[in-house]
Amino acid sequence: MLFFTQCFGAVLDLIHLRFQHYKAKRVFSAAGQLVCVVNPTHSLKYAPTRCAVAQTSTEQGSLPPCHHHEAVHDPQLVPCTCPLFSCPWEGHLEVVVSHLRQTHRINILQGAEIVFLATDMHLPAPTDWIIMHSCLGHQFLLVLRKQEKYKGHPQFFATMMLIGTQTQADNFTYRLELNRNQRRLKWEATPRSVLECVDSIISDGDCLVLNTSLAQLFADNGSLAIGIAITTSKVHNSEAEI
Amino acid sequence: MLFFTQCFGAVLDLIHLRFQHYKAKRVFSAAGQLVCVVNPTHSLKYAPTRCAVAQTSTEQGSLPPCHHHEAVHDPQLVPCTCPLFSCPWEGHLEVVVSHLRQTHRINILQGAEIVFLATDMHLPAPTDWIIMHSCLGHQFLLVLRKQEKYKGHPQFFATMMLIGTQTQADNFTYRLELNRNQRRLKWEATPRSVLECVDSIISDGDCLVLNTSLAQLFADNGSLAIGIAITTSKVHNSEAEI
Repeated sequence: MLFFTQCFGAVLDLIHLRFQHYKAKRVFSAAGQLVCVVNPTHSLKYAPTRCAVAQTSTEQGSLPPCHHHEAVHDPQLVPCTCPLFSCPWEGHLEVVVSHLRQTHRINILQGAEIVFLATDMHLPAPTDWIIMHSCLGHQFLLVLRKQEKYKGHPQFFATMMLIGTQTQADNFTYRLELNRNQRRLKWEATPRSVLECVDSIISDGDCLVLNTSLAQLFADNGSLAIGIAITTSKVHNSEAEI
Repeated sequence: MLFFTQCFGAVLDLIHLRFQHYKAKRVFSAAGQLVCVVNPTHSLKYAPTRCAVAQTSTEQGSLPPCHHHEAVHDPQLVPCTCPLFSCPWEGHLEVVVSHLRQTHRINILQGAEIVFLATDMHLPAPTDWIIMHSCLGHQFLLVLRKQEKYKGHPQFFATMMLIGTQTQADNFTYRLELNRNQRRLKWEATPRSVLECVDSIISDGDCLVLNTSLAQLFADNGSLAIGIAITTSKVHNSEAEI
């Protein structure tokens, strides 16, 4: 009996996911766009920030190695870039992607344009929705975070970071697009390097910021569909900057 | 001597405005776009909202007429739509534009695409920047407001309203665009009717919302350039809405 109940539950979940996927495809009508359903993760690392923890731990020299730690500190090693956990891992930039996939179970998607469908927007802050995006020969980390920057007033922050150096990141432009109910909001910027802390990007406000009321206008049944596109940054060369 | 000092001050102001105009044109490089320098107005009407005041006054039946008030209440009369003052004026929708121009000195600009250059962004909340925009045979009211929705955390809210009914407004789409420092933020929506209260649009969050940190990233020397475009709303018909 329990087996049948579980099976029935699994089938219902599958139908729900298919329905969300179908709805997201209708919103982002460009044919062939990959829709990825991303479930939230309640962040466990908010007391001291990851940067602070990494720094403190490095200062104390007490980091237990996870995969690639060496006794003599190698300046080419970077800390774990996962925004969710205060992970003590260190490794070369080239192996960050495999660490995030294997240790933190972060999915990776292929394609120049994808739709990121974040579910359960109603969950309390702090909550993160994270995927990796493989495109134009590089990997990017997309983070959507619900956070109370002002106590009692949660906001959503979305940003994209290149898993690479800032010099590499400067060659790209990412675009995040919300589109629903005859409203459209687009944010375009140069990705930051994943070597920077996502917390500092959010505290700088240098990302797509949504109040909960605006997020509600774009959400459908508790899910928020964000269209993502990455291009090489020639677009910006035509801009006449001040 | 005082005369020469004043003349010198006026010339300096003129040079400053020309410089801001030149810079805004460089950002919004589309040739022929009209750049309008909009100075802030410290809002005087924030204790009770305009809607509340209008409602209370109507209930009390104690509105002193300003231009077009009649002794017997005409249901076709609308209250003054100026977001700045609790003005007791009432009149027909057709004469709202002339009331706003004549009584509240709100400028009106022609053209499908204009650049709204709001100066002195640093001024404390509540502050409004307002113009009217004449386009496609209709007049629109653009309001940029700095307001503390959460105490101690001022935000910027920008919206566009049609000086007409909501049925007329549904035929249009407006776009607000910020573009600077390799970042671009676009907001597209159907304008609300000016018969609705701008305060309720802002409290709903159904507008372009900027935190001060994000506004800083787009501002130049204390001024924020917002590109404005209005189109007929055929764009949205191609969208597959949920």
